[in-house]
Amino acid sequence: MRLRNVKNKETILDSCTFLIREEDAIKKIGNWEKEFANSNPIEVEIGMGKGKFIYEKAKLNPGINYIGIEKYDSIVAKAIEKMGPGLNNLKIVRMDALNINKVFSNEVSMIYLNFSDPWPKSRHSNRRLTSKMFLEKYDSIFRGTKTICQKTDNRNLFEYSIVSLSENGYVIKEISLDLHSDLKEEDIVSTEYEVKFTSKGNKIYYLKSEK
Amino acid sequence: MRLRNVKNKETILDSCTFLIREEDAIKKIGNWEKEFANSNPIEVEIGMGKGKFIYEKAKLNPGINYIGIEKYDSIVAKAIEKMGPGLNNLKIVRMDALNINKVFSNEVSMIYLNFSDPWPKSRHSNRRLTSKMFLEKYDSIFRGTKTICQKTDNRNLFEYSIVSLSENGYVIKEISLDLHSDLKEEDIVSTEYEVKFTSKGNKIYYLKSEK
Repeated sequence: MRLRNVKNKETILDSCTFLIREEDAIKKIGNWEKEFANSNPIEVEIGMGKGKFIYEKAKLNPGINYIGIEKYDSIVAKAIEKMGPGLNNLKIVRMDALNINKVFSNEVSMIYLNFSDPWPKSRHSNRRLTSKMFLEKYDSIFRGTKTICQKTDNRNLFEYSIVSLSENGYVIKEISLDLHSDLKEEDIVSTEYEVKFTSKGNKIYYLKSEK
Repeated sequence: MRLRNVKNKETILDSCTFLIREEDAIKKIGNWEKEFANSNPIEVEIGMGKGKFIYEKAKLNPGINYIGIEKYDSIVAKAIEKMGPGLNNLKIVRMDALNINKVFSNEVSMIYLNFSDPWPKSRHSNRRLTSKMFLEKYDSIFRGTKTICQKTDNRNLFEYSIVSLSENGYVIKEISLDLHSDLKEEDIVSTEYEVKFTSKGNKIYYLKSEK
């Protein structure tokens, strides 16, 4: 996502009641159930961008707890401004995904990777959120069946992800090479990027994998 | 492939020195090395159609033995007519793929599935050559690492195959959602159908999987 500075971003972040910064999130490792005051499943979106997807998910599914993580203050501030009122089952964590295994332990039931940075150069392949390095970090954050859902419009990232997930023990349970022609629009929770992109007739790749 | 009757097909089949019919092929189970009089790896194309792919493969790789299997006399006759002179490392077996585990045992190193019938209706999904039923038949024919390579232009068959292979223990090692843009044309051994199809700018899906 393109980074544009947001004025007063610190003020926006400070005034948000459901934002947690990495340094505080680390202290909650293994105890996120307490944060939500219930034992509902916890689903995490890594790189939530402007937050449309995770906010809609949280509104639609009050029996699931959602955590959107995002690295950059400016994007988090934009997301907070765009979101409606806080929801009991939604938190935002401003953090670097590299530290995800320092923030969660044995408590996440699903990871969403939506339109992640494709890092096209092969020397950067480790930075892709489906690289072996990241998949190993995710291992310790899951409870029960490890489930990763991915959407992207980037063919190379998608091909890379299928091979990497498969080689690292994930089974591809669902796949679509044209999600928006396979499902009805009202049955898809889209990101902001996805709405723009599909309105031009472009295809979205989707997979759900389990380990 | 569309079936058009070929006149004199029996004569063509009878005069071909490298054609084996199912009833004779069954007697060779476990002994295909003897048929080739060497212990080179054996690779099988299920549904070879007009045989362009398997014939070119055999010409290119004299150190590998190739067997093209095909169900219909008319198509086999067409293939024989189109092929050049017989090659030491190529056999054709006229047989039903359903009986593949009665013809081979612990002796095949690779299976090629090129532009297989997609059997689009879900009540026919068992007939797809990557269904659980077929994958179980293949289990006993392989020696060493089980390798299946698939090419298709049919999105639904490709999606189905990824899930079925993955759920049945295969790891996706290579994948391309646009094979002919990823490789140079001279590095691809194409089927007849593939040549026509890609010349219109259409995309070919490809995967290589191992168990």
